[in-house]
Formats: sequence, structure tokens, C-alpha cells
Amino acid sequence: MHFDLSQLENFTKNILIKIGCSEKDASTAAKVLLAADLRGVDSHGVARLSGYVRLWEANRINVRPDIRITHETPSTAVVDGDGGLGLVVAPFAMKVAMGKANIAGTGWVSVRNSNHYGIAGIHAMEALKQDMIGISLTNASPLVSPTFSKERLLGTNPISVAIPAGNQPPFVLDMATTTAANGKLEILQRKQKEAPLGWIQDKEGRPSSSPFAVKEGGALLPLGGDREHGSQKGYGLGAVVDIFSAVLSGANYGPWVPPFVAFLEPHPHPVGEGLGHFFGAIRVDAFRPADEFKSHMDNWIKRFREAEPVAGQEKVLIPGDPERELETERRQQGIPLLEPVVEDLKNLGDRLGVDWVQK
Amino acid sequence: MHFDLSQLENFTKNILIKIGCSEKDASTAAKVLLAADLRGVDSHGVARLSGYVRLWEANRINVRPDIRITHETPSTAVVDGDGGLGLVVAPFAMKVAMGKANIAGTGWVSVRNSNHYGIAGIHAMEALKQDMIGISLTNASPLVSPTFSKERLLGTNPISVAIPAGNQPPFVLDMATTTAANGKLEILQRKQKEAPLGWIQDKEGRPSSSPFAVKEGGALLPLGGDREHGSQKGYGLGAVVDIFSAVLSGANYGPWVPPFVAFLEPHPHPVGEGLGHFFGAIRVDAFRPADEFKSHMDNWIKRFREAEPVAGQEKVLIPGDPERELETERRQQGIPLLEPVVEDLKNLGDRLGVDWVQK
Repeated sequence: MHFDLSQLENFTKNILIKIGCSEKDASTAAKVLLAADLRGVDSHGVARLSGYVRLWEANRINVRPDIRITHETPSTAVVDGDGGLGLVVAPFAMKVAMGKANIAGTGWVSVRNSNHYGIAGIHAMEALKQDMIGISLTNASPLVSPTFSKERLLGTNPISVAIPAGNQPPFVLDMATTTAANGKLEILQRKQKEAPLGWIQDKEGRPSSSPFAVKEGGALLPLGGDREHGSQKGYGLGAVVDIFSAVLSGANYGPWVPPFVAFLEPHPHPVGEGLGHFFGAIRVDAFRPADEFKSHMDNWIKRFREAEPVAGQEKVLIPGDPERELETERRQQGIPLLEPVVEDLKNLGDRLGVDWVQK
Repeated sequence: MHFDLSQLENFTKNILIKIGCSEKDASTAAKVLLAADLRGVDSHGVARLSGYVRLWEANRINVRPDIRITHETPSTAVVDGDGGLGLVVAPFAMKVAMGKANIAGTGWVSVRNSNHYGIAGIHAMEALKQDMIGISLTNASPLVSPTFSKERLLGTNPISVAIPAGNQPPFVLDMATTTAANGKLEILQRKQKEAPLGWIQDKEGRPSSSPFAVKEGGALLPLGGDREHGSQKGYGLGAVVDIFSAVLSGANYGPWVPPFVAFLEPHPHPVGEGLGHFFGAIRVDAFRPADEFKSHMDNWIKRFREAEPVAGQEKVLIPGDPERELETERRQQGIPLLEPVVEDLKNLGDRLGVDWVQK
């Protein structure tokens, strides 16, 4: 089933207004949330809307937050999200980073007291509008075991870096620091297929190929999968994301990060406030003239895209290519939603008195 | 065979003075080079000294560089290394980054016209001395194939992030963006052992377990190993390192990066000057009081180190633990060097009239 982007955005906005968000915040949040669907990260899009509402029902989201800067220097700031939706806090913080970059060359903002912010990439991409490189990091509910750990101590802690180009479309890396994202497991669960080794471990910490292992107390594995394949690097990157997002800002880190699902209680002894993000904005002309930079980026992108592919593959991709192709397709053909997601959204609409979209 | 650190440093310094470096530069370079041996990255240490000398003999290193800032904003600078040793250019650039951070909260320096700079970590760790987070990136000779590419377009492009703690030793991530570093292949070559799948591909782009495959025209693989295990992420990270180091500064990038080995000619049509690095310095008190930050870092480190390990493993490590343990050991017992490395260094000493160390 395919749905029109603007109708889904409108539905999302109306739901958020119903729970008490301002019109402006609801509109921002809906755009950010639907960006995930548009770019093919279906697990982080409108499918999560009822999850956010349940968090609000559990008094874990402040729909009228006073988001503010609590500390700053010429190139840095700490933002307190006041328990608001990450979907609203993140755009505020990214704007602060870009404002700093305009004056100091770069801007770096660490955020505490926030909630899940959708896909990392959409925030990094904001910077592209002003010829800046954008960086977006966030910590997340602990589902990942560091190398050699039986315990889950990290989230899928994504890294996004968006870099402007000239005639070429921009370079947009948006990656979880795990081998595979949770969304991919859900697909395997539905298809009753096995996961490749290196994605997950079971609750005893043994390598597992069951897509249900994480649900049963196991864990996602850091990028690399095992020590022999460099999982200590994926773990290290996820750790850096956690520290930049939360230890710099005063948010919860590691196993203390509050879970996204409302049926799991937050840690009884938090070490900080809410969850944390980290944003960076780098004016490219703080290094060299923007035109020069962009023409070399075009050259970089062309050279890599035109590289000779291995047998059986059509071409070498540039980070961001697959998502951009999906976005073009979905803008034309609509957003595909699975039956259970549609049912869940309809129920949510019924419950809150918001009309579901017309087919 | 074990050798005394200060004797090896002295030998290195004397060699560098012989080829024309100033006493000060030779001393800096020797410290940086030997830091690799001290921390267990034997492939990047004194074993490379004769490689640097051969580059100088090929007129590809300027031993009396005029290293200078060519552009700056409050939080950024571009440094031109004037073809100098990366071992000297990098400490200069890191100092500039830290100076910027002292005033603007953070400092970011992109470097062109440099050469190989030893291990990434040693430059990032400079920041720790001033309660700063240090970041160090560099591009390198193309030996890595992006996901789906038959061609080698990237270097092992390392990422290092050093984060200060309080009572705990600092967090020091220092990782190549490949599954395995070239040094590990050399070990397998000597032992005539196979490499795990996911480390390398042969010259046709097929997965290979031969440790000789890279020498025979194959390539190292990005962290992740293959698409199913997320190699597009390792490729994306290596690409970001390349772009920050070289497209921002005006150095060569991708397949244009000059090779470290003197017997391979640089690309006949370079797209920039020399190779590139990128450094960052972040004052932790640009975000929150340093004591507060460091006590939470201590808590972070303790929690992760005390995590329950999987069966068969003693404990969960913190990035930097293995290198620090080796450093302690080697400071006491000396630096182990392989027979062929010792022979090579003795020959170098003979050739340039520098006394080899006393045993």
C-alpha cells in the first residue's frame, strides 16, 4: 500500500497537535519523521509514531519544551532539550551549530535531555543548504554489545556526515555503528529467514543467526561483527558517538540511555538527563573557496562512481546514492507502508480523533 | 631482539639530521615515529625509517619545510606542509588546532602538501595534555577498494579520537577504516597462514584468503568486509577521512594520493599537493566543567570495563587499553625488532655514517 507523503505528514502533524505540540513543532517533527520513510529507513519513520505517543502517555515526552542553550563558546554550545521530542530538539540544535559556523567557521552542539530524533542524516543534510558540511550523531537505547561483552551497553549510535558537492548530488553518509540495523532483523523475522553471522549474538553472547535473538535477550554486534573482523572498531565508533552525545552534554550514556519503548522503564538511577545528540556544522569556505571545494567534490564523486566494478555488480555507489534514488521514487509513487503499520496508525487516529488519510 | 627506546630515538634523530633535518625537527619526528613501536603498531614505526629516507632520495620529501597557515577563521585553519615529513607537519598542525580551541572552544585544521605522519593516535593524544579531546585523520596510499569496486581508491585512512578521563586512563580510539591493517597481513605472510575472509580481495575483486593478494594487485577491504556485513560503512568512513584531509585542504585524494613506497611514482596528474591530514581539538570545558566531564568519563570507562564478558574472554576492553599495556611493557623491556628490520637499519646507518645502537 502506497500513501501520499503530504497526507502522511499531515496525519502525523495532527496527531502531534492532539497530544499538545504547538503547530510549528508538530510540523517540524512530522517533516523529520517522514524523511525516514522518504529515504527508505522505514523502521525510523511514521511506523514509530505510535511509539512516540506511548512515550508521551508515559509522561516521558514534554510536548511544550523550553529548548535552550545552557552554555556556549564561540564554536560550541550545550542545548537542553527539556524532555522534548528529539524530532524538534534536533533541528533547533542543528540551527545553533550552523549559526556558530557562520561566525566562527565551525559550530558544535551537544544536546542533553532529548528523545529519539528520527534518522541522523536528515539533520546533517540541513547544513548542505548553506554550503556547510553537516554532522549528526545520537546515542540510543542499549541494544548493542561491545566486543567480548555479554551485556548490551550501547545503542546503534549512528554517524551521519553530509558533504556538499557542485553539479553532483551531495555525499551523505548515514550509518549505524553496528553491522546491521534493527530494521533489517525485522525484515528477516517477517520472512522467517536466518541472519548472516556477524550481525547478532544470543543472550549468552554466542554468535547467532536467529533474527529473534535480540528480542530474546541477545544483542546487535558492532560494525565488524567479531574481533577477527574488527568489531572493536565498530564498538569504538559507537562509544565515541555516545561520549560526544551524552558525556559532553550531561545526558544519559551507555546502559543508562532511556529505552524508546514505553513498556520498558528508564533506569532507576540515571547518570544524566534524557538521551543525547551531537551536531556539527563546518563552513567549507572556512577552509577554501566553496566553488573550489565543490568542484573537487564533483571530481571525487565522479572518480569513485566510475570505478570499475567487481564481477556481478553494476557500479560503485557514493554514500547517499541508494537513499536519494528511493526518495525520488517515493516522491512520485508514494510511501509504501506495511499492513500492520497502517492498522496501527488507523487505531492511533481513532483513539486520538484524527482522520486517517484518504486513499 | 629488544632495543632501548631512547637509543632507537637517538639513532632515528641522527639519521634525519644526516639527510638535512634541523635538530628540532629530527627530534620531533623521531619521537612521533617511535611512538608507533612503543604502542605496538610496529608496521608504522622505526621499521619505516629507511622508507622515509628513500622518499627523500627520490626528492619527495623537503627536509627544510616552511610549514605555514595559509587560511584561517576563529576555529579553522589550513596548513601547507611544504612537502615536509608528516612526522613534523602533523605536530605543527595539531598545535594550531589546540591554539584555536583555547580561544574558540574548538580548533580544526586541514593539511595539504604533507607526507605520512606515523600513527594517528599520537597526534590526537597531544590534546589530552590540555583537557581537550583530540581528533586525528589522514589519507594514505590507495590500497583499499570501496564496496563493489575492483580498483583501489582509498588508503587505510585511520581515525583517532582521544578523550581525557579523570582517575581512569584516557579513551584512545586509533583505528584503520579497513577490516584489518596491512601490518597484520605481513605477519600472516611471514607465518605462511591464510587471512580470514573479509580482509582482502584479489586483483579480480574476488574474496581472497591469501595474505599475498594485496601485493599481487588485490586490495584491502573496508571495515565490514562485504556488503552483507556493512562494508559500505567502512568505505563511507574512509571516504570522509579522505575528504576532510584532502578536499578541504587541497591535497591529493583517492587514487591520486602519492604512494609511500619510493619505487612507485606519484600520479602524473595530481589533483592537489602531497597527502592530507585533518586534526581537531575540543576543549571539554567548552561544553561542561572539565572535572564534571572527567568524572563521568571515569564512570563510563568503569561501567564498560566491568561489563560481564562472553565465555572464553577475560574482560571487555576500553579503546586504548591494549596499546597502553604494550607501552608499559615496552618502556621496561625495550622495543622488539625483527631481524630483517635490524639489518635494514644497520645498513641505513652504514650508508649515512650513523652509528647503530649499542646492544
